Amino acid sequence: MRIDVRLRKHKLSPAKIIVTYYFIAVTVSILLLSLPLARRPEAEWTFIDALFTSVSAVSVTGLSTISIKDTFTTPGYFILAFILQFGGIGIMTLSTFVWLVLRRRIGLKERRLIMTDQNQSNLSGLVNLLKQILILIIAIEIAGGLILGTYMLKYFPDWQEAYLHGFFASVSATTNGGFDITGQSLIPFAKDYFIQFINILLLTLGAIGFPVLIELKTYLFHEKRHRFTLFAKVTSITFLGLLAFGTIGILLLDSQHFFKDKPWHESFFYALFQSSTTRSGGLSTMDVAQFSDSTLLFMCLLMFIGASPSSVGGGIRTTTFALNLLFIYHFARGAKSLKLFKREVHEADIIKSLVVTIVAVMICFVSTIILAATEPFTLIEILFEVSSAFGTTGLSLGITADLSTLGKCIIILLMFIGRIGIVTFLLMMGKKEIEANYKYPTERIIIG
Amino acid sequence: MRIDVRLRKHKLSPAKIIVTYYFIAVTVSILLLSLPLARRPEAEWTFIDALFTSVSAVSVTGLSTISIKDTFTTPGYFILAFILQFGGIGIMTLSTFVWLVLRRRIGLKERRLIMTDQNQSNLSGLVNLLKQILILIIAIEIAGGLILGTYMLKYFPDWQEAYLHGFFASVSATTNGGFDITGQSLIPFAKDYFIQFINILLLTLGAIGFPVLIELKTYLFHEKRHRFTLFAKVTSITFLGLLAFGTIGILLLDSQHFFKDKPWHESFFYALFQSSTTRSGGLSTMDVAQFSDSTLLFMCLLMFIGASPSSVGGGIRTTTFALNLLFIYHFARGAKSLKLFKREVHEADIIKSLVVTIVAVMICFVSTIILAATEPFTLIEILFEVSSAFGTTGLSLGITADLSTLGKCIIILLMFIGRIGIVTFLLMMGKKEIEANYKYPTERIIIG
Ligand SMILES: [K+]
Ligand SMILES: [K+]
Repeated sequence: MRIDVRLRKHKLSPAKIIVTYYFIAVTVSILLLSLPLARRPEAEWTFIDALFTSVSAVSVTGLSTISIKDTFTTPGYFILAFILQFGGIGIMTLSTFVWLVLRRRIGLKERRLIMTDQNQSNLSGLVNLLKQILILIIAIEIAGGLILGTYMLKYFPDWQEAYLHGFFASVSATTNGGFDITGQSLIPFAKDYFIQFINILLLTLGAIGFPVLIELKTYLFHEKRHRFTLFAKVTSITFLGLLAFGTIGILLLDSQHFFKDKPWHESFFYALFQSSTTRSGGLSTMDVAQFSDSTLLFMCLLMFIGASPSSVGGGIRTTTFALNLLFIYHFARGAKSLKLFKREVHEADIIKSLVVTIVAVMICFVSTIILAATEPFTLIEILFEVSSAFGTTGLSLGITADLSTLGKCIIILLMFIGRIGIVTFLLMMGKKEIEANYKYPTERIIIG
Repeated sequence: MRIDVRLRKHKLSPAKIIVTYYFIAVTVSILLLSLPLARRPEAEWTFIDALFTSVSAVSVTGLSTISIKDTFTTPGYFILAFILQFGGIGIMTLSTFVWLVLRRRIGLKERRLIMTDQNQSNLSGLVNLLKQILILIIAIEIAGGLILGTYMLKYFPDWQEAYLHGFFASVSATTNGGFDITGQSLIPFAKDYFIQFINILLLTLGAIGFPVLIELKTYLFHEKRHRFTLFAKVTSITFLGLLAFGTIGILLLDSQHFFKDKPWHESFFYALFQSSTTRSGGLSTMDVAQFSDSTLLFMCLLMFIGASPSSVGGGIRTTTFALNLLFIYHFARGAKSLKLFKREVHEADIIKSLVVTIVAVMICFVSTIILAATEPFTLIEILFEVSSAFGTTGLSLGITADLSTLGKCIIILLMFIGRIGIVTFLLMMGKKEIEANYKYPTERIIIG
């Protein structure tokens, strides 16, 4: 917390930077999507729909109160894709920037990796970082588009159509936007394991966090002896661990139900893809409403955890979840500190990870109570929508369009909080406190 | 955590003391309830029922897979009341003892209050404490029984019957056992505000924590200038705050539903009593299934929070909840430490309170996922049962008897964990770790 306190002395506090960017992006998005050329004249378009769609696009969630297909024109689709790109990459850039540049205690090595230095806490440093992220993400999208497009020649006789589908799918997956032009997500490719595999790869590259991508690039193309940072190790292992854990969980919980009469490879790919998409993607190869309540609850948990920090995803973030689990384990063993990969985790990060989880649980639970009072849906439908919005995942059991205005406002707020992250949200809400110079005697309290 | 580590050097670790007591109490309870004189010969009595009833009684929860009324004989009722008394008071005594005696950093004043000294970490100290608690609780029960019994002469022409009902109700309320001999909890007294008021008072005295009772006694009868400890202030304010917050919440959430056509005083008492009973009591003046899902979810939250530490109740405890909220507020304002009533809260207690909440949420959520897979009930029914068991409250939407064996085992485990508390549970699960003498460099991680 020492660092956060110091940050507040800057005019540009990290919370302010991110929140300001978000509000500007949403406002621009509302204006762009409200342009007459973007919308079909017959489609209804209220302010709450415009706000909902814009927040959903800027936070790359993908939930929608309207039918994207029936509301927008082809130029409208392109505008939406553009917003997705900048919504995802913008906050990814800013949160990486805040972490890298303002937190001066970070090692020289990480700084060198991202080609930034001590004095770059200014606009040119930010532009540099944005350029790097843009190049990397667009490179991934082009590679994905080429692979998917070429492969899709199998489905579309017309090569232009094949590459259009390939590139759109690649952009949607990499930004974790969750939108589609098939009209039914990836359900048409439910038995095409190659397309699914490429999509999972792209979803992962978008959601695993920019610092990891940079380190991976360094390792692959520049320096084979590169030692990965603690952050990269923790987030990658957690990310892949959750992918495996999610797949096994979904398979087990629905084994007597959805997977009952399916061959093993089909079951496996259904589970793997749906596990992967809960990180923040929101694409799906099936109608998730076919799963049992138990599996849906499990998916709520996965969506709640969400993606890595400094990525295009939301939720409490993988590192938060990992530190929670590890610290609880160490706490039960009576250890004083948390050691990982021969590094000691900073106590402030541990406390922060615990606070983030509790605040997130509180926000999601209170939202669920309010929605249960105002909306006519079942508890699992509401909980799924809430987790999906907070995790900026975009999966839904189909209630989004039928929410009341109050309900839509709550989902908007959840997408916003999920995307900017709980820490930024808390710092935005809190006012600066002048640290007292005096000290009171310490007194103990019985806990739990 | 420094302290917990040190405690482990004693042969009698606090976790071991409490868990051992719990297991002995459950075993004795199974044996006593299985005596032929305790049960009606025609009633079914399987091992899982015996285990469930015993755990429920020892943890003063009050959930039951069988009909208490149809299964036990009159001697059986008395045995059950006896188990409730020792289940509630036993763990209350032990957890107070552990806190007071083993944590030597506690002030001299608290020590003097409870007439214990530095060297009393032995059996005679424990017996002393138990004696004090017993005297205090039995005094409360007798006072409550006399008031209720005398008042009930209005309902029962026979004075013996009136006092039997009065005393049983007083014991059930004070121990927060939640059992009744009316066959329908306090529903017959749904419009008798005096009986409800006395019950709320008794429930509160049982659930507000033994240290608070002792301080209150000192203040009232011995020393008017007594300065209440930080613990007493935090837990009392939180307890009363939750009572008010719960009442208002229930009134608001069901205003268009259950309270629609009721006069204000009736609505108020329904809400007040049901709010009060979620602290851990489990008695009720209505069938809670009449509430809407939203109110039931809100009650799940209240039950999850539960009672004060060192009381007859369960849940994460009021102090844990209070420290969570206060610390989150301070965290958002960038403060380094938590100051309350001119005292500084120990950092280890803050971390502990955060860990307790997260572990409790995880345990309840995982239990809900498993029960959703194995039981045929709705999500709200399951969540309510889980929260009720963890908060050792004993309210139910009526599914307890129809749970599968696996379902019963999960509820048993939840009552156990809720009663002994998350901290004791974690220390029970964890193995001692030898603290390393070396130190690794600290490295930061991006959180949320
Ligand atoms: K998404
Ligand atoms: K109870």
